[in-house]
Amino acid sequence: MGQYSAPLRDMQFVLHELLDVEGTLKTLPPHAEIDAETINQVIEEAGKFCSEVIFPLNQVGDREGCKYEGNGVVTTPSGFREAYQQYVEAGWPALGCDPAYGGQGLPVLVNNAVYEMLNSANQAWTMYPGLSHGAYECLHAHGTDEQKKLYLEKLVSGVWTGTMCLTEPHCGTDLGILRTKAEPDANGSYRLTGTKIFISSGEHDMAENILHLVLARLPDAPAGTKGISLFIVPKFIPDANGAVGERNGIACGSIEHKMGIHGNATCVMNLDGARGWLVGEPNKGLNAMFVMMNAARLGVGMQGLGLTEVAYQNSVTYAKERLQMRALTGPKAPDKPADPIIVHPDVRRMLLTQRAYAEGGRAFSYWIATQIDIELSHPDEAARKEAADLVALLTPVVKAFLTDNAFIATNEALQVYGGHGYIAEWGMEQYVRDARINMIYEGTNTIQSLDLLGRKVLGDMGAKLKKFGKLVQDFIEEEGTNEAMQEFVNPLADLGEKVTKLTMEIGMKAMQNQDEAGAAAVPYLRVVGHLVFAYFWARMAKIALEKSASGDAFYVAKLATARFYFARLLPETAMQIRAARSGSASLMALDADLF
Amino acid sequence: MGQYSAPLRDMQFVLHELLDVEGTLKTLPPHAEIDAETINQVIEEAGKFCSEVIFPLNQVGDREGCKYEGNGVVTTPSGFREAYQQYVEAGWPALGCDPAYGGQGLPVLVNNAVYEMLNSANQAWTMYPGLSHGAYECLHAHGTDEQKKLYLEKLVSGVWTGTMCLTEPHCGTDLGILRTKAEPDANGSYRLTGTKIFISSGEHDMAENILHLVLARLPDAPAGTKGISLFIVPKFIPDANGAVGERNGIACGSIEHKMGIHGNATCVMNLDGARGWLVGEPNKGLNAMFVMMNAARLGVGMQGLGLTEVAYQNSVTYAKERLQMRALTGPKAPDKPADPIIVHPDVRRMLLTQRAYAEGGRAFSYWIATQIDIELSHPDEAARKEAADLVALLTPVVKAFLTDNAFIATNEALQVYGGHGYIAEWGMEQYVRDARINMIYEGTNTIQSLDLLGRKVLGDMGAKLKKFGKLVQDFIEEEGTNEAMQEFVNPLADLGEKVTKLTMEIGMKAMQNQDEAGAAAVPYLRVVGHLVFAYFWARMAKIALEKSASGDAFYVAKLATARFYFARLLPETAMQIRAARSGSASLMALDADLF
Repeated sequence: MGQYSAPLRDMQFVLHELLDVEGTLKTLPPHAEIDAETINQVIEEAGKFCSEVIFPLNQVGDREGCKYEGNGVVTTPSGFREAYQQYVEAGWPALGCDPAYGGQGLPVLVNNAVYEMLNSANQAWTMYPGLSHGAYECLHAHGTDEQKKLYLEKLVSGVWTGTMCLTEPHCGTDLGILRTKAEPDANGSYRLTGTKIFISSGEHDMAENILHLVLARLPDAPAGTKGISLFIVPKFIPDANGAVGERNGIACGSIEHKMGIHGNATCVMNLDGARGWLVGEPNKGLNAMFVMMNAARLGVGMQGLGLTEVAYQNSVTYAKERLQMRALTGPKAPDKPADPIIVHPDVRRMLLTQRAYAEGGRAFSYWIATQIDIELSHPDEAARKEAADLVALLTPVVKAFLTDNAFIATNEALQVYGGHGYIAEWGMEQYVRDARINMIYEGTNTIQSLDLLGRKVLGDMGAKLKKFGKLVQDFIEEEGTNEAMQEFVNPLADLGEKVTKLTMEIGMKAMQNQDEAGAAAVPYLRVVGHLVFAYFWARMAKIALEKSASGDAFYVAKLATARFYFARLLPETAMQIRAARSGSASLMALDADLF
Repeated sequence: MGQYSAPLRDMQFVLHELLDVEGTLKTLPPHAEIDAETINQVIEEAGKFCSEVIFPLNQVGDREGCKYEGNGVVTTPSGFREAYQQYVEAGWPALGCDPAYGGQGLPVLVNNAVYEMLNSANQAWTMYPGLSHGAYECLHAHGTDEQKKLYLEKLVSGVWTGTMCLTEPHCGTDLGILRTKAEPDANGSYRLTGTKIFISSGEHDMAENILHLVLARLPDAPAGTKGISLFIVPKFIPDANGAVGERNGIACGSIEHKMGIHGNATCVMNLDGARGWLVGEPNKGLNAMFVMMNAARLGVGMQGLGLTEVAYQNSVTYAKERLQMRALTGPKAPDKPADPIIVHPDVRRMLLTQRAYAEGGRAFSYWIATQIDIELSHPDEAARKEAADLVALLTPVVKAFLTDNAFIATNEALQVYGGHGYIAEWGMEQYVRDARINMIYEGTNTIQSLDLLGRKVLGDMGAKLKKFGKLVQDFIEEEGTNEAMQEFVNPLADLGEKVTKLTMEIGMKAMQNQDEAGAAAVPYLRVVGHLVFAYFWARMAKIALEKSASGDAFYVAKLATARFYFARLLPETAMQIRAARSGSASLMALDADLF
């Protein structure tokens, strides 16, 4: 039950009308030849694949879940394996990968847009190729030439998949205390021993081999995060030609029963003298893994966006069809026994909340993806640095803000369905359950907030934040005399000033007491998220204002959604700024024993 | 896994120190003899029963769920039936019931406090006796003497259970369009035909008979809500002595697979010429059912409170035990590999959010229960009317505000556990899933908001709201010169003024356009909820200020939680007031086709 069709028109609006990605890509040598039409074609094809192949497996995957068959064997839900074969045969894993290893070399931007759709269609399924792509990026950045030669083509073609193995039973956030050991053996490789938990896609029946990227400690490693090294530990050890060989000593011991993403195997992985090969330098494993983590954080943001979009599509359909009560202002469908519930103001509030978060999230995350492409490929170092700073600043915001919003949005979608929303058959409650993990993994949203405020903003005295502020300021000045834009520019300017003040205030307080940053971080991230959304919504409103005069329904709706965003969602900042300013005293006063 | 122990100390604080219920009960003839000690004993006993018998079945119930065995038969999870037998044998169903029918005649207040604990221990299980009690109240208020004689003792003893059958596939909120038919037969009874859905506790193996209270239409009934009558339709038709006889034509056709409350059977009930007896007058069924609905709405509020409390208890324990990272201000447990996560400000924010919502909800809901006792039993009509007005005004607030808060709280509890919160074994994700239904059933929280703003506030030009405002005003004036109380009284007074202004503003706008009320209702309810909480938190702070000087940890913690509430949770009103004032235009502008 349910439906998903790729929001192609809105994706094209963001790509071409809002971001002019063709113009940006022309400045990047590896992508200079890519035109808008090619991008549209790729997205359209991917959208079809998502609707036709992946989406129909979403509820099946939730209902059946993965099964641990004993002896290290995990089976995925009906159809998952076959869909993955189709995905591989169509060459989708190669989309954003390096042509040197068989990739298609398309920009991160296009890959990201495809991932939005994959996640709308089936988040649990998408985590198999998603983690493989993360492993690809990590090895591409940190592997030796030999490692790249041996492994990358397998990941690019998709015949092998990948994982990241960080968490252990006693540590998730705090990797500094991890215990898995890696001891050098006589062959230049290492023997790894320990237990990893919460390993997404850790074992399955979809590919012939699985490459685990594992954090572990060398015998002489210093304590803490500076003593962690990264290893590649294949399920089957390949020979020099990449043929699958001997079974390695890493095996799934059990899978978790979880709130959602039932179709993805969340594995306990036992390493029992498993052979591994060092990736990057000894004791620098956490740095190498952070390449993967940052990509993964953007990826989690795309999971949030994907769920927001599909929840919206379904709840709109229901709201137009379900007849219940009359409009407060009198019957709107007098020929029917009741009006469709979309006549009710609060139903519209719930729908528009989802829509504004979906469209705002799309604009923001696609823009971030273009910044990553600039960071990776721009010929000018200053331009690369500028983009890298914006990406570093806003990666935690994409992750936390989009996943918080997705939880809000999927819950509103469920609520639109009333009692039916609570029933599994309708599919809406699955979106809520799936969305819930995105606020936790790849660093909880609290950790993202601390990263934003502590490291990214206060860590450089606001320098990176000022770079984003400059974009906002430029837009405000550009539109300063545009009468029609004042309804958007004024609240944007107001919020910009408030963020500046708030940041300085917290910075001053945190210099006296670090807990002040810890106390303010979560509401601070929500405020910055809204600043970003207000900026993109104002920019989208500008285009819609210019083009809606024609009566084109797309722009009329875009403008209405922008107005809704400013009227109804931006006011959250009034609460969050007060909360962020309230300081740490009310949190820290109570002795731990008195809780 | 997990834990629950009744929060006896805080319950006693609310009952005796905050509300002086002994003093109130002395003014009510049926309860004049009940002293504090008796109440404490009942609660302590019930708390033991909840921790020892009901709570251990909570995860089992979720995991196993109810099973539809075909042919109308439903089995409940392991242990549910036996626990219910114990519950019946101990006489708990009789607690708040009329002594004329075997009840113990205790006040609503005590019954409510017991339900808080039952819901903390196991919401799905508690819905079996909970709905029976609702059926008892409805029949007690509207049944004929003969019906009371035949049925009430069975409900009071608990050997039979009850349900309410309202919803049909095409109507939930909009009962005016319901289709189930009732045709008079030759025996003075009726034959009912139709399909009811979402019938909680509709079929099970826990009791020898089930009494269904069913809404249906008589042949000559006018259209809409004025043509609905109420019938009692027993599963087995009893003889005049109450012995179970012939199987009636009402049967469960299937049960729903739901997001949560798996241990409660949510049934499709098919009526195929089932014999029923009219309760109350023809075509006045909705009024009669509203007795049950209002009790049920308070009951749902208690479900929210129960889940908030148990989620808090568990997440506090985890936060004290889980070691992860060092405090931002330096190690607090230098002898351990990391600090317990309760040192982190944002973990404390998550814990205190739950705590403030639990304790605030307890104060509010116990107070409402005393008002119901006054409404039912006070010798003075004016006092009864005054209490009835407060209850009518605040019933939608108890229902919606406490269940919204419970969803926030259970989600914060899950988040405290990090990845473990997402894993079924730990039990936290079940609380989130169970809590989600409470925002939907017995009238969605949007419906509660429309009831509050449209019917209860604007419907009498704010007269009932002023009655609550008077309590707030009196307290503010009393404490006006108490220096130590200004930190609580000032924001309370400020919010009180804002609510008055906001109400007038919306009222004026709604006179021009009814959609203005629909657009403002949901944020308006949140604002009123906070006014109520701010009032009770200020009153609790006053007691804590007076008594915390002694160093008694209970009052120290109470005061700190009050300060947290004002610093961190009350600021939500800044957002909600702006949202409520933003009007209907941003919601209604977009043509339904353009969604």
